[in-house]
Amino acid sequence: MIDETLRNVPVGVVGCGYWGPKLVRNLQSLPGADLRMVADLDADRLAHVRGLYPAVRTTTSYDDLLASPVEAVVVATPVATHYDMARRALLHDKHVLVEKPLTNESSTAQALVDLARERNRVLMVGHTFEYNPAVDYLKDYIASGKLGKVYYINCTRVNLGIFQKDINVIWDLAPHDVSILLYLLGLKPETVSARGAAYVQPEIEDVAYVTLNFPNGVMADVRVSWLDPCKIRRITVVGSKKMIVYDDVEPTEKIKIYDKGVDAPPYSDTMEQFRLSYRYGDITTPAIPGSEPLAVETAHFVACCREGATPRSNGQVGWQVVKILEGAQHSLDNAGAAQEITW
Amino acid sequence: MIDETLRNVPVGVVGCGYWGPKLVRNLQSLPGADLRMVADLDADRLAHVRGLYPAVRTTTSYDDLLASPVEAVVVATPVATHYDMARRALLHDKHVLVEKPLTNESSTAQALVDLARERNRVLMVGHTFEYNPAVDYLKDYIASGKLGKVYYINCTRVNLGIFQKDINVIWDLAPHDVSILLYLLGLKPETVSARGAAYVQPEIEDVAYVTLNFPNGVMADVRVSWLDPCKIRRITVVGSKKMIVYDDVEPTEKIKIYDKGVDAPPYSDTMEQFRLSYRYGDITTPAIPGSEPLAVETAHFVACCREGATPRSNGQVGWQVVKILEGAQHSLDNAGAAQEITW
Amino acid sequence: MIDETLRNVPVGVVGCGYWGPKLVRNLQSLPGADLRMVADLDADRLAHVRGLYPAVRTTTSYDDLLASPVEAVVVATPVATHYDMARRALLHDKHVLVEKPLTNESSTAQALVDLARERNRVLMVGHTFEYNPAVDYLKDYIASGKLGKVYYINCTRVNLGIFQKDINVIWDLAPHDVSILLYLLGLKPETVSARGAAYVQPEIEDVAYVTLNFPNGVMADVRVSWLDPCKIRRITVVGSKKMIVYDDVEPTEKIKIYDKGVDAPPYSDTMEQFRLSYRYGDITTPAIPGSEPLAVETAHFVACCREGATPRSNGQVGWQVVKILEGAQHSLDNAGAAQEITW
Amino acid sequence: MIDETLRNVPVGVVGCGYWGPKLVRNLQSLPGADLRMVADLDADRLAHVRGLYPAVRTTTSYDDLLASPVEAVVVATPVATHYDMARRALLHDKHVLVEKPLTNESSTAQALVDLARERNRVLMVGHTFEYNPAVDYLKDYIASGKLGKVYYINCTRVNLGIFQKDINVIWDLAPHDVSILLYLLGLKPETVSARGAAYVQPEIEDVAYVTLNFPNGVMADVRVSWLDPCKIRRITVVGSKKMIVYDDVEPTEKIKIYDKGVDAPPYSDTMEQFRLSYRYGDITTPAIPGSEPLAVETAHFVACCREGATPRSNGQVGWQVVKILEGAQHSLDNAGAAQEITW
Repeated sequence: MIDETLRNVPVGVVGCGYWGPKLVRNLQSLPGADLRMVADLDADRLAHVRGLYPAVRTTTSYDDLLASPVEAVVVATPVATHYDMARRALLHDKHVLVEKPLTNESSTAQALVDLARERNRVLMVGHTFEYNPAVDYLKDYIASGKLGKVYYINCTRVNLGIFQKDINVIWDLAPHDVSILLYLLGLKPETVSARGAAYVQPEIEDVAYVTLNFPNGVMADVRVSWLDPCKIRRITVVGSKKMIVYDDVEPTEKIKIYDKGVDAPPYSDTMEQFRLSYRYGDITTPAIPGSEPLAVETAHFVACCREGATPRSNGQVGWQVVKILEGAQHSLDNAGAAQEITW
Repeated sequence: MIDETLRNVPVGVVGCGYWGPKLVRNLQSLPGADLRMVADLDADRLAHVRGLYPAVRTTTSYDDLLASPVEAVVVATPVATHYDMARRALLHDKHVLVEKPLTNESSTAQALVDLARERNRVLMVGHTFEYNPAVDYLKDYIASGKLGKVYYINCTRVNLGIFQKDINVIWDLAPHDVSILLYLLGLKPETVSARGAAYVQPEIEDVAYVTLNFPNGVMADVRVSWLDPCKIRRITVVGSKKMIVYDDVEPTEKIKIYDKGVDAPPYSDTMEQFRLSYRYGDITTPAIPGSEPLAVETAHFVACCREGATPRSNGQVGWQVVKILEGAQHSLDNAGAAQEITW
Repeated sequence: MIDETLRNVPVGVVGCGYWGPKLVRNLQSLPGADLRMVADLDADRLAHVRGLYPAVRTTTSYDDLLASPVEAVVVATPVATHYDMARRALLHDKHVLVEKPLTNESSTAQALVDLARERNRVLMVGHTFEYNPAVDYLKDYIASGKLGKVYYINCTRVNLGIFQKDINVIWDLAPHDVSILLYLLGLKPETVSARGAAYVQPEIEDVAYVTLNFPNGVMADVRVSWLDPCKIRRITVVGSKKMIVYDDVEPTEKIKIYDKGVDAPPYSDTMEQFRLSYRYGDITTPAIPGSEPLAVETAHFVACCREGATPRSNGQVGWQVVKILEGAQHSLDNAGAAQEITW
Repeated sequence: MIDETLRNVPVGVVGCGYWGPKLVRNLQSLPGADLRMVADLDADRLAHVRGLYPAVRTTTSYDDLLASPVEAVVVATPVATHYDMARRALLHDKHVLVEKPLTNESSTAQALVDLARERNRVLMVGHTFEYNPAVDYLKDYIASGKLGKVYYINCTRVNLGIFQKDINVIWDLAPHDVSILLYLLGLKPETVSARGAAYVQPEIEDVAYVTLNFPNGVMADVRVSWLDPCKIRRITVVGSKKMIVYDDVEPTEKIKIYDKGVDAPPYSDTMEQFRLSYRYGDITTPAIPGSEPLAVETAHFVACCREGATPRSNGQVGWQVVKILEGAQHSLDNAGAAQEITW
């Protein structure tokens, strides 16, 4: 009898553009994983990988990777190819980790979920922020009740570049915030709307605003831009008891909890009696572990492969995110009109 | 023959709540103005004013003020009363400075504009930021062409408090940003949309997002909130050549000009040839004069009264702002659907 | 029988340069004080005071003020005149509040302390920061034991300007930090040393560093400069259990308490066993009341005058500060050699 | 005939504690270098290196490394061993790069300089900041005359940890600032003084202040601490025309040039005529290349080895830094008395 926990999972990566090399670096040094092969159409990129990691085989043919004995495939190719790449890997009975977003339409996302279930394989999406210790802290804090009722959430994710040419800024950046929102709230939005504009490349929006309306009146707004002078990655969560700012750009003080709020009297006979009292209390910056989210994510993927477990950011979650992005796209194409999302 | 430029304009103020005392302080020390009388319904507030400025008369009756020989009236009462207060002052042939917004509906704003023209009196709105040296710097910079074509503008104006009970956060805070946008761009928006939610007081939105679409594809977004842990007053103007951030909370470095951008090639035969080149150049923080906007604004009002000139933030501008807010309110009441504004 | 607590103390101010007008403004609106007269050699400044506060009498003769029935005199004249101004006021049986530093040599400071005791009058020095709520918070925190043993304190107080022409930057800015240190620690330093240089005005140091060695190994360093591009007013207090930064330039988050430190084992057999364990815990920003220190200071002075009480920043404390500055000056004049201070 | 410029220099590293792995990583990917062997007494560290770079040989014997055909040795062992390690490498005719400081006394530093000259080998010290693009920018700016006459420089380098057990904080952190100062000014200090205290480990100062007096009245102060809650790496250079702040902790805006200063009139008949006029102009943040200093440093070392050139941070410079640190140590041991440095 083999001790399964001692066995390394053989893994391959397809796609070595911007994000792929980060995955390769993490998988290469990950206990429990055995990075065997990297595939990309560009021979120069493959040469670079071999220079760094002489033990890793490389190929320009995805078929080679699929035919190899790797048990898990990590897909880091352009979004438009995600569905095909992941589908073929599942048909070869590989476990699959797909970069976010899972696919570019909800029907193909659903098809992947179904196929993975059929083949009994792990299907996971690279929603990195679900593996970020600061986001975990936020989730625990909300769940503990210390924030009170969640009122609203504001997300800003802007920077100069990197422009994509096959997807707009919503499909590129908003998956992060949408997956964070689903993870934090444990709720699915009822409606979505979006507004945006394309300045640098025709018809590819580089600036956009997305509004999500969740049950219980929770409103979440997401601002994304490839065209801003400052790098801002900031999430404000306002609750009835506390308010939190999560600033991912801060090197150490990522989360600040404000003991601030408005305490309205339970009722008042007349508007004149109505008074609001403001609370301005202490601010606390908790110590957050400094672990690298991508390391946690890849370790989680490999553990799920080995144990046959369902990942946190599983295909189902990936499909939900795609469905919301799809709704946002419809709204964008219809002058910002709110779209209901039918779950 | 009297030298008109030596004569002080006798002025009265009605309304001594949050903003009134600031106007009183500025008018009291303003060369060219002679603050004669302050009216308010609350005798305690008036006693406080007399304590600070023994020479100023006070009254709880607006009629007293209107009957007095003051030539100009400054209206700092709740928004719902602006129309009536300003109308009565104009009917008594007083010049009028009304706090922003001019009124709470465009029809009454228009009526005040007409009445002022008829009576040949000055009608001005307290759009303070049009008298802010940093906003002037921005306007001049855009006009100089150095920013290139204006792409989009993002405005954030949030804080904890002060909640209003007769108007929502759009009517309270957005007049600042809308008047700044009109002033900077010299354009009127074609459509407006808004989303918001009410958390602390039923049916009075305390959090809202407004989108304005201007001619030439310029998009402007305004985020306003009474319910945020941080005080943020920040405007980002992105142009084809430069990007500017104006942070009004910064004590000294209010404006930063970023020599940043994306230079796309004029054309490319194939998508593969398509390359974007990013420009990351110097950042410049210009020295901005430290003059107090309210002092500039009140001095401008008094000068217009004396000279019969048309103020920068005149009634016509005030009407435009109200018309835009009205459109935003309609959108808010219709699930965020974009509203055309007919000029 | 008169209810003494209802009586306003009649007060006069001498000196209306940079700091005087701030004192005048505070005294003018202070319950319990009756600002009667302001003296200055410059008639224009006096005219300005009368414009703001028509009820206040002004004079260019200090004798007028001394002859008047004011019971308390506030001295805000150049440092070189402090001794004479304060002495004459005490000889006229006035209570006296002198701007910091008390005088420019310890012998005259001592003489004022003796004279005030003899005349049974209040002698207070304007060590504003002893009335600053953030400094009070620091003092209480240290006293509570939560900081552990105080290791060392670093103070930085730099800016561009305002250059003095009769005293160097140590006598101008360091009184703030020295008075804060005495107040926080409740200890007197055993030695002092100082280094500095004069760049803009010959022989008047505009940049300087002062080191104080207190009992128990506490070291405190003070950096002062009139010639720095940034305004920094920052005090770091490092203790065995916690570390605190007090940043007076921060508009709201003035104090940050860091749960950080190094926990060395009590002993170790060999150097190789020696390990230091670092503690990186939460950061807390306490809510600090926003009261204006000068308002608290002037109210405390007037209360002491009325009740015959000894002020917190009394003449004795003022003498200690001058004695330390005198030692620093000796060190500065002797290439930075440490000076013992004999108490 | 061999094209020397195409040949890779075979290199070995001794010492794999905190800094060694960074050197290994840089050398491993450096074009022109061929990292052959790594030596350390700790077998676990060597195993870790082999895991990352399977092609690199490792050894626990420095003799192995010296006997190998590597042409250059990088010494990253504890400071007390630098002299012996570097001497033996030179005696084996290897080029040597020694981590800062070169040695722990000026006599041994001088001996290494002499030996390297004798053997005609490259001797370089790892003064990383001399290869930092921001420091280069500062040096060029000063050299251009745009800063005017340099008045004074203030350096702060503090953090929590990492405590050393064989050297105090001056020998650990101040080499950075001292080498930067020598590089920027092109001058050698005439005197040095230092004050410090030991809180965590007996007799090993963890907090210290060093003052350097350069010719022409330039004063430079260095604050170093292992015991501060904040990571600060900040250098302020004040000149007669401009002031610059270099903040190494800032991710992108590392340098700010302030057009600020004081313009005194050339003379004045009386002190009363004396007026200072302050200049508050623009602030400029230049775009600085983002190259990693250690990559530049190691490339420079390898280029010097190949070409037989003298490195920027050569042994002579390393000796100067050690001589200054030695002076600071003498001052520290003598209550801060200023020490003359004889060059």
